[in-house]
Amino acid sequence: MTSTYTLERHLLELDDCPDYPSINNRELAEKLAALNEFGTAPSGGFNRPPFSEAERGAAALYKGWMEDLGMMVREDEAGNLFGKWGGKDPSLPCIMTGSHLDTVPDGGAFDGALGCLSSLLAVKALKEQRFEPRRSIEIVVFVDEEGSRFGHGLFGSQVVMGEVEPQSLHHFTDEAGITMHRAMSEAGLDPEHLKHAKRNPEDISFFLELHIEQGKQLENENLHIGVVSGIAGPSWRSFTFNGSTDHAGNTPMTMRKDALAGAAQFITEVEKLPSTVSGTAVATVGRIQAFPNGTNVIAGKAVVDVDVRDISLENRNELLKRITAKAKEVASGRDLEADVKKGIEIAPVPVKKSILDKMAEIAEKEGFAYKVLPSGAGHDMMNIGKYTAGGMIFVPSHNGKSHSPEEWTSLPDCVRGVKMMSECLKEFSS
Amino acid sequence: MTSTYTLERHLLELDDCPDYPSINNRELAEKLAALNEFGTAPSGGFNRPPFSEAERGAAALYKGWMEDLGMMVREDEAGNLFGKWGGKDPSLPCIMTGSHLDTVPDGGAFDGALGCLSSLLAVKALKEQRFEPRRSIEIVVFVDEEGSRFGHGLFGSQVVMGEVEPQSLHHFTDEAGITMHRAMSEAGLDPEHLKHAKRNPEDISFFLELHIEQGKQLENENLHIGVVSGIAGPSWRSFTFNGSTDHAGNTPMTMRKDALAGAAQFITEVEKLPSTVSGTAVATVGRIQAFPNGTNVIAGKAVVDVDVRDISLENRNELLKRITAKAKEVASGRDLEADVKKGIEIAPVPVKKSILDKMAEIAEKEGFAYKVLPSGAGHDMMNIGKYTAGGMIFVPSHNGKSHSPEEWTSLPDCVRGVKMMSECLKEFSS
Repeated sequence: MTSTYTLERHLLELDDCPDYPSINNRELAEKLAALNEFGTAPSGGFNRPPFSEAERGAAALYKGWMEDLGMMVREDEAGNLFGKWGGKDPSLPCIMTGSHLDTVPDGGAFDGALGCLSSLLAVKALKEQRFEPRRSIEIVVFVDEEGSRFGHGLFGSQVVMGEVEPQSLHHFTDEAGITMHRAMSEAGLDPEHLKHAKRNPEDISFFLELHIEQGKQLENENLHIGVVSGIAGPSWRSFTFNGSTDHAGNTPMTMRKDALAGAAQFITEVEKLPSTVSGTAVATVGRIQAFPNGTNVIAGKAVVDVDVRDISLENRNELLKRITAKAKEVASGRDLEADVKKGIEIAPVPVKKSILDKMAEIAEKEGFAYKVLPSGAGHDMMNIGKYTAGGMIFVPSHNGKSHSPEEWTSLPDCVRGVKMMSECLKEFSS
Repeated sequence: MTSTYTLERHLLELDDCPDYPSINNRELAEKLAALNEFGTAPSGGFNRPPFSEAERGAAALYKGWMEDLGMMVREDEAGNLFGKWGGKDPSLPCIMTGSHLDTVPDGGAFDGALGCLSSLLAVKALKEQRFEPRRSIEIVVFVDEEGSRFGHGLFGSQVVMGEVEPQSLHHFTDEAGITMHRAMSEAGLDPEHLKHAKRNPEDISFFLELHIEQGKQLENENLHIGVVSGIAGPSWRSFTFNGSTDHAGNTPMTMRKDALAGAAQFITEVEKLPSTVSGTAVATVGRIQAFPNGTNVIAGKAVVDVDVRDISLENRNELLKRITAKAKEVASGRDLEADVKKGIEIAPVPVKKSILDKMAEIAEKEGFAYKVLPSGAGHDMMNIGKYTAGGMIFVPSHNGKSHSPEEWTSLPDCVRGVKMMSECLKEFSS
């Protein structure tokens, strides 16, 4: 039995799905499969790089579905797709909801696509129930969220917030040397007028995105819904330990300045520090290089890269301070030199307490087994939420798998996600 | 001021040298320079790969010096050079002494060359003093000790002990694809009759080699002479830790199976173990690989290579046992899997206690600041000493540098080395 996504596998879970008025569980499964007809790879995964035929095709299909719901649909200059359901009070800023349809190479069936679908089916359910939103509800499908073709992630949402310089489109190229500008032009978009795609943040009161967790917390705790407390922007530091390259045989243990042993001690210390600042902070050493990296040579140099995240900037900064101090402490205890270099630095975006409370209340009311948890991964919500207010709903990822053909969220979990989305849209648009 | 070897720099230390009868300090410095006229590199280092013009040229020069001393000189089929000083009792097995003249690429002026010279000047001094050895003294210059051209280290001494299959000469090639067989033929040697180069170990009672320490112990303790207690053959083990590759942002600290964190903990534990088995044991992790080795990915796999040495096989085995047990312990404490793979395994060659005691007595008598210490590096003595008896004299290496243009042993230390060598040859040939 394959462990990759197929519609057939998903439909096996149809009987386990909860029944909600106006949510058609089979439709959800079938629409997910229909989107994933675009870019199917032999591995069972999906390839929908931005501005490709596959990605544009999935967007066109989705566009038709929004039109079927009677929404006012338009595409902006960058390829972001919008569908508007006018509210009773057009003077109020809208509620925006959606996700993305592009994938990483050989990606999964759920990352992005499920978020887009949950917004669509939530709107459909509300419409069927003759709900009348006070604020307009706008669905958005952001283009190029993953950034895996041009190295420019969260592109569509940055365009919408006016953060992309049109000139830069000539600098970002894919592996074939094609610039973003050319790829967009060839896809029939209008990179020359990118600035027109900017939206006024004041016209948006709240952005809500559903996404797979890409972690194992929900699954491990048998939960169905995650209410995201914030996006824990990463901060990277590269620590270099310098010691002395010596002969592994002719240097007694007490006479060594072993940079790798120092780096190793540092790694074990880094692990212990996040819990000293907060329950949501994480610090990871995923990358190490030793020099000269020979079995019979004591390493004279070791470089350790640390990824530090928290939803609170203050806590993250405190953790960075403690980690840096620990590097110095370990180094000086071993007569090594330690240097630190700053890497990427993305500000955390916390979710407002009032929104969190409201979303938790909804999850409670619907009887979902849920928890409040941070998102360690970046999402378009970061860009929109920075200027307005944002929120996110997580649904479980089987084994935490993501960006892989083995990505999987059970159909019942998908259905509960749609229900959570529709209840939130109802609440926040009222 | 350059920190690489030059004759001029060496001669600056002439006034600091001790005066010993029949040892000409300037001759020592000049003969070392003359050998290093062969293979001089622009870096200030030396390139004398085996069977090259440079290496053969140095050997030819050295051969002439032995002839000047009235020794019976011959070259064997592999290119090993012998010079014999007949003893009063030709029926007794001989004392053999010497080192090698080949270098690693961009090597130093002392590694090998100084050992060859100390044997030569020791014999010269004894001859001048009209000493009459009871046993014959044979100087040997082993060919291809370093193994850096064909990957076959300690070649010459293995040939002499009959350990090299002639057929294998067709399999070892250099970077240009030239086989050892061809390189030897082109140098005028006789690889077809390699077997004739085998010597009967029973004809050798003792092999004594002088070498630079390639470590910092003597220098750090202000000592002049090292009496080597044994060669600590290395044993290599490769430990693989397997955990779970997860998202650095979306996996709480408590839910990780971080293979690199496990490997790091293991490395810090390995460091503590050698002293639990002996004062001479060492264990080094010089090489580490993490997978996928990405800053924002928790490593699902980490491989750590450990180099373990001691002069006692029993202690080394005990240390290996403790290291392996520690890997299992660390892994199980973190819910990781740990595998171990055996790597190279070279038996330690201890120096006989009677020889050690005798050499220490000589060092004492001569008033040398000395210590007894193990050699972590391999030497030709390993191959000869395995069948007969072996001993080694170390002289200090400035900063422990070796296999580098910065290799340096002060002229006074070189002179003391020659004196120690001549006293040992006198003692062991009597």
